[in-house]
Amino acid sequence: MAKTYKIKNCSELQAERLNFKPTLPEMFKNGPASVKVKLGKTTKSVADQATVKKMFPHTYGLPEISFVKGKSSADTKKAIKAAVVLSGGQAPGGHNVIAGILDGLKKANPKNRLFGFLKGPGGVLENKLKEITPTLMAQYRNTGGFDLIQSGRTKIETPEQLGQAKENILKGKFDAFIVVGGDDSNTNAGVIAEYFKQEGMHTSVIGVPKTIDGDLKNEHIETSFGFDTATKIYSELVGNICRDVNSAQKYWHFVRLMGRSASHIALEVGFKTQPNIVLIGEEVLAKKMTLAQIIDYLAKTIVARSADGKNFGVALVPEGLIEFIPEMKELISALNDVLADHESALEKMHTIEEKKEFVISKLSPKLAKLMKSLPAGIASQLMLDRDPHGNVQVSLIETEKLLVEMLHHKLAELRKAGKFKGKFSAIMHFFGYEGRCGIPSNFDANYCYALGYNAAVLALNKCSGYLSSVKKLVKPAKNWECGGIPLTMMMNIERRKGKEKPVIKKALVELKGEPFKYLVKNRDNWAKTESYIFPGPIQYFGPAHVTDMTTKTLQYEQAKKK
Amino acid sequence: MAKTYKIKNCSELQAERLNFKPTLPEMFKNGPASVKVKLGKTTKSVADQATVKKMFPHTYGLPEISFVKGKSSADTKKAIKAAVVLSGGQAPGGHNVIAGILDGLKKANPKNRLFGFLKGPGGVLENKLKEITPTLMAQYRNTGGFDLIQSGRTKIETPEQLGQAKENILKGKFDAFIVVGGDDSNTNAGVIAEYFKQEGMHTSVIGVPKTIDGDLKNEHIETSFGFDTATKIYSELVGNICRDVNSAQKYWHFVRLMGRSASHIALEVGFKTQPNIVLIGEEVLAKKMTLAQIIDYLAKTIVARSADGKNFGVALVPEGLIEFIPEMKELISALNDVLADHESALEKMHTIEEKKEFVISKLSPKLAKLMKSLPAGIASQLMLDRDPHGNVQVSLIETEKLLVEMLHHKLAELRKAGKFKGKFSAIMHFFGYEGRCGIPSNFDANYCYALGYNAAVLALNKCSGYLSSVKKLVKPAKNWECGGIPLTMMMNIERRKGKEKPVIKKALVELKGEPFKYLVKNRDNWAKTESYIFPGPIQYFGPAHVTDMTTKTLQYEQAKKK
Repeated sequence: MAKTYKIKNCSELQAERLNFKPTLPEMFKNGPASVKVKLGKTTKSVADQATVKKMFPHTYGLPEISFVKGKSSADTKKAIKAAVVLSGGQAPGGHNVIAGILDGLKKANPKNRLFGFLKGPGGVLENKLKEITPTLMAQYRNTGGFDLIQSGRTKIETPEQLGQAKENILKGKFDAFIVVGGDDSNTNAGVIAEYFKQEGMHTSVIGVPKTIDGDLKNEHIETSFGFDTATKIYSELVGNICRDVNSAQKYWHFVRLMGRSASHIALEVGFKTQPNIVLIGEEVLAKKMTLAQIIDYLAKTIVARSADGKNFGVALVPEGLIEFIPEMKELISALNDVLADHESALEKMHTIEEKKEFVISKLSPKLAKLMKSLPAGIASQLMLDRDPHGNVQVSLIETEKLLVEMLHHKLAELRKAGKFKGKFSAIMHFFGYEGRCGIPSNFDANYCYALGYNAAVLALNKCSGYLSSVKKLVKPAKNWECGGIPLTMMMNIERRKGKEKPVIKKALVELKGEPFKYLVKNRDNWAKTESYIFPGPIQYFGPAHVTDMTTKTLQYEQAKKK
Repeated sequence: MAKTYKIKNCSELQAERLNFKPTLPEMFKNGPASVKVKLGKTTKSVADQATVKKMFPHTYGLPEISFVKGKSSADTKKAIKAAVVLSGGQAPGGHNVIAGILDGLKKANPKNRLFGFLKGPGGVLENKLKEITPTLMAQYRNTGGFDLIQSGRTKIETPEQLGQAKENILKGKFDAFIVVGGDDSNTNAGVIAEYFKQEGMHTSVIGVPKTIDGDLKNEHIETSFGFDTATKIYSELVGNICRDVNSAQKYWHFVRLMGRSASHIALEVGFKTQPNIVLIGEEVLAKKMTLAQIIDYLAKTIVARSADGKNFGVALVPEGLIEFIPEMKELISALNDVLADHESALEKMHTIEEKKEFVISKLSPKLAKLMKSLPAGIASQLMLDRDPHGNVQVSLIETEKLLVEMLHHKLAELRKAGKFKGKFSAIMHFFGYEGRCGIPSNFDANYCYALGYNAAVLALNKCSGYLSSVKKLVKPAKNWECGGIPLTMMMNIERRKGKEKPVIKKALVELKGEPFKYLVKNRDNWAKTESYIFPGPIQYFGPAHVTDMTTKTLQYEQAKKK
């Protein structure tokens, strides 16, 4: 890394980032040969222990692993081959995970080799792969995106798929198989680890926690990578909008933020920018709020600000909100069934009105009434094609438009009743794709590199069925602690499509957690005032308190634990 | 500025930026007392000289002014009072213009005072203002937004308004009145300068060129402030999307970019990110392209990429495109008339369908046919309320949706004909508000500070009817050249609402200019390949080639002049 690496056709910042050297946790400074495995207690799954144990006879109850300085007992003389795959949506830092794995392997033995399966787990099934050489890697260090090997959403689940994966892993003579993904992909890694052991294979299967949504975390995983960078990008934009709002003083901006289900992103962006309203899906669910109640809540804030002469503001709407509203969840679930049950009948219809009428005729009277009450655009969006798992694609539903359209009606009513005399002009935004492939922040660049390096050390120590774990993340990177957490330890049993399935528990926003409590403590003040904060764009050079700070969510969560 | 200034409730970067010290052009290093006015040749307007001269008897033909080092002939012993107003949409750097004015005035004489009229020219008419003290200013240095004094879109045009402005300027005993705005606002500044001289007032009226759209430039004004920062912000986002597209390889992203009329923003963002398609409104107009021809052009690229196995790409759509399509321009103009002529009849109608039917009945057969052929959503948007000038609000028209919807039809046709076998999934974005209030780039922070300081020097030298001019912007800030350009020099006569009006000529993208020629030379290659560049977020610290570079547009334009 001492020499300066250059590529053609790139921006000035990109060129600089190629030569950024991530900070490695202190214990890894002398390479994998100087890292010792320390075994912790044997573990059990977070819930449903008996069932999970039965499903994972070979990988249940593994001990936690932490790494400490000392002579490694791993045999580094024999060269190994490892393969990595990226699974699911993009998150900033994926390339650094791969760089960390590569550097860890090469440091242990320059003859070790790393391969990447292409386009996600589908590439494992089709045996499409390429070698990640140091020269190839040099063009991707500290960059955003997954374009080095791409990603995909295929799962390796059926007996045929598992058999195919076994065949290709054996064909490639891989000693380790590293899966970079979210909760579902890591559940899948656990299944593969179990299957490989059952089949007598020696290949280590290791997971790496990735997702901008921030919902893959637990007692042992402080955060998933990409959440830091993505929320910083969204915060830059929301902060800019807050400043615009306070300068123009004539619009309400409604910003929908990506995040498949949990509202972590909206919460973190809320902390960083302090807008007037931050909706949290988990709260809506807990309070069993109806759409009408949410509108009442929004209208109350808008009317109160208007009474102070402020016909402007900023509201954050988590993408997943719609599925947390009990009546909407029920409607979406019923629509999923109707669309699946009458696929061929619906295909023959030509207009959306015809389809809508047909669908409504199949709904219960209560849901039919709700469906009819929705703005036409939203009703159409709810009937769009489902994803491969039969779920509605929430990113396609313009919840912010639904809320604004309903607010117009509500405020017109209030105006008639003499309770609202202001103006309400709304501008809407959706931020998602903008943040998934940003240049990773220094935090994510360091974190991902450490996660990858750590995964390599786990592989060299023949640990299988583990998730790469890097902890104490609010401390400087050199003080981070590394190790492995058994994948089975994070699992519970959930019913999916009528079947009991072991899955890694998705972390929703905890209403008793410190981050949400911080919001509750401050939001009334934010609603009334313009306490806006303007984070600005991610900085990579300059004072450490600007460039290296981590998320507020993590700070609040970890502060409590001290 | 030596002491560190802090404010509560702000981000880490914000805190750092408050203490950034802009680089002042060398000639201003020793303050206004050491700057001498050098008069250039007398000037004439860019066109319609006789008419403009007749309309501006007191301010026509003023000489160009450049500043050089030397003993000033201005009397700095007598303290002066100046007032500033921000006019029109936000642009990054407005606060630094004010800081530059303040510092220039105070350096000349600590007793000089600066006031800001509030909420734009409306504040001048209502005499709402506040003093900009150094303490107040310290909270806004190098920040985005116009929230220090806000802005507004009122114009000071009618005899009553001009009289009111005179009264309040005299009441405040202002020696200088500085208008920060775009082409229209600076035209207005020229009118006020002329009026004040005609009324025997000694108050200098000075303009400052502001607009993110980049369309206020000419032989003497290299660029307007804010264009650099806004295009850098949009380029960050578009670059991130390009990386996402190349990672996921399954979507076409259509990105609409703000810019009221001219396509400079789309062009600059195109240079910085090299997407597959960059539409330029001025080219569409010059080639008299119909909507159908634009769709053909887009479809051709999509089909060609698909044939190479690439069902993905990125297309940039300038917000103003719709008004450059001759048939759409005609339709919009006819709609403007119908909406104005039948306002009360339309107000009584309750549904959009009813209104649409009524409007169509008033159009010519050709335009009625076009209106009927448009997707319902777009047709509705075209009938939305007009701005105070009776113009359609292009930012509310989702041109990207129009194009995508029509592309779906076109590609379905091509598929039937066996000419398209690929997939076409589109995701749409609109970026505008995100960029108007970003933290100004180092370039804009320096440029705005110099523009403001220069405006103060013009004011101290009693120059009226001038636009603050800072040139040689591709050189380092210390080498920039400063002076004043007569506002009348940039004017020509245009017919607006049936009346001849003197206006500063709006700079559209020149099809014979170097920037557009660069696009033409490269776009076929960009269309076929993934030559994407990822600029990343604006950097404020670090190597100068990352932090201080200016726009590609300016580089190409100025390179030619060398």
